[in-house]
Amino acid sequence: MPRYRLTIEYDGTAFVGWQRQANGLSIQEAIETAGAPLGVAVNGLRGAGRTDAGVHALGQVAHVDLAKEYRPDSVRDAINSRLKPHPIAVREAAVADAAFDARHAAVRRRYLYRIVNRRAPLALETSRAWLVKPSLDAGTMHEAARRLLGHHDFTTFRDSECQAASPMRTLDGFDVVRQGELVEFRIWARSFLHRQVRSMAGSLVLVGLGRWTADDLSGALEACDRARCGTVAPAAGLYLTQVDY
Amino acid sequence: MPRYRLTIEYDGTAFVGWQRQANGLSIQEAIETAGAPLGVAVNGLRGAGRTDAGVHALGQVAHVDLAKEYRPDSVRDAINSRLKPHPIAVREAAVADAAFDARHAAVRRRYLYRIVNRRAPLALETSRAWLVKPSLDAGTMHEAARRLLGHHDFTTFRDSECQAASPMRTLDGFDVVRQGELVEFRIWARSFLHRQVRSMAGSLVLVGLGRWTADDLSGALEACDRARCGTVAPAAGLYLTQVDY
Repeated sequence: MPRYRLTIEYDGTAFVGWQRQANGLSIQEAIETAGAPLGVAVNGLRGAGRTDAGVHALGQVAHVDLAKEYRPDSVRDAINSRLKPHPIAVREAAVADAAFDARHAAVRRRYLYRIVNRRAPLALETSRAWLVKPSLDAGTMHEAARRLLGHHDFTTFRDSECQAASPMRTLDGFDVVRQGELVEFRIWARSFLHRQVRSMAGSLVLVGLGRWTADDLSGALEACDRARCGTVAPAAGLYLTQVDY
Repeated sequence: MPRYRLTIEYDGTAFVGWQRQANGLSIQEAIETAGAPLGVAVNGLRGAGRTDAGVHALGQVAHVDLAKEYRPDSVRDAINSRLKPHPIAVREAAVADAAFDARHAAVRRRYLYRIVNRRAPLALETSRAWLVKPSLDAGTMHEAARRLLGHHDFTTFRDSECQAASPMRTLDGFDVVRQGELVEFRIWARSFLHRQVRSMAGSLVLVGLGRWTADDLSGALEACDRARCGTVAPAAGLYLTQVDY
C-alpha cells in the first residue's frame, strides 16, 4: 500500500468542510470518490487541517494509501480528471514514507484571512473575503495582534464544541498587512483549536474598528472564557495556505 | 440632469459583455435597470471600455445622467442595493462635469491579464484566469512584448469584426511579471482595438512556450494580417483595471 502526499487547493464555498459528514458533500469525500479507482478507501484520505464549511485552501496537505504504485503525476492527473466539475484541485502528488502522517507530522500550519475594507459590496471577491465597511486601522491591529503571540490558554478563542484535549497552543505569527482596500492577516502556528483563527480574526477587527483596545484583547485572552470572544469572522475570508513538515 | 461618474467592478463570467445585447444580460443593462429609480435611462450609461463576454473589471468607468441631484454615496448605495445578487458593484460615484464623457475623455486604459502556469486544473481561479500547463518563460515574454510598444498598425491583433475606423494605435506599456505560478500581463494605452489585448496576450504566450520567437511576433505585427495572429487568449483572464482621465 504505497503512501502518497497530496497538496490540495479548493474553493470551500459549496462544501460542508474538509471532513466527511452525513449532511452534505465534503472536500474529503469528493477526493476519496475521485480516487476510488486508484484504491483510495472511504476515510482513507487524512488531511493536515479540518477546514470548516466555506473555508478555502491553497495548500491543504493530506496523505493516502493507494492500491499499487503509480507515477506521482499520474496520481495527480487521475484524481483531478475525476474531480471535475468540483472546484478542487490536487496541485501536487508525491511519494511519501509509509510512516508519513499529514496531520501528526505537521510542524506549522499557515492561514491567510482576507478582508475587503470598503463601502461598496463585493463583486469579484464574493465568497472569497469578508467585507468590512467601516475603516480599519491596520497598524493598530498589527500591534494588538502581538498580544496573542506565544503560549497561552486560548479558551476564549475556541469554539464551544472544540474537542481538543487541551486549550493550550503556541501562536507563532499574526501579521496584519494592508494593500489598498485589502487587509490581510497571516497567521501561523504548529496547530490551532477549532475556529481559533476566525475567533482571533473577528476579535482583532473590533480593535481595528476602535471598539476594542489592545488591552481589551489581552483581557479577553486572559479571561479564558468563550463568552469574551469578540466576533467570529466569516468562513469565506479564510484560506489554509501552507502546511510545513 | 446632473451627471455622475461611476467606477465599477464586476465578474463578467455570466454576462454577454459590457454592452446591451438582445441575446442576454449585459453589465450595462443590469446597472441601468438598478439605476432606473434614480432616472437612469436605457442606454444612458456610457462606459469607457466595451468589455467582451466573460471579461472582468476592477475599475470600469462610466458616466450617467440622473433625474436630480443626489449625494454621490447615496447614488452608489442605491444602485448597489438593487444590483444584488449580480456580481457587479459600483465602487465609487462622483459628481462629474456636464461635459464629462467616460469614453472620449479617457487618456489611458489599463488592463491586467492573469495566467496560472501549472499542470493542475484551476480550483480557486476558475473563470478568473487562463490555465496554461506547459512552462512559460516570463523573461522572454517580457522582452518580446517590447516589439509591440509604440505606434503601429495592429490589424493582426484586432478582431475581424472590429469597427474602429483606423487600425493604428499606440501601445504604451506591456509588462510581464511572474509571481510563483501566476504570470501577469499589465497592458496600457490610450485606447485599444476590439480583442486587441487578448490577441496580443495569446500570441505572446506562444513566445513564452518557445513556439514563436520575438522575431515571429514582430513579423506577425508587420504583416498587418489577422490570419497571422497566434491565439486569442480566453476572456476569463482579462480585467479592465483602471481608466485614467
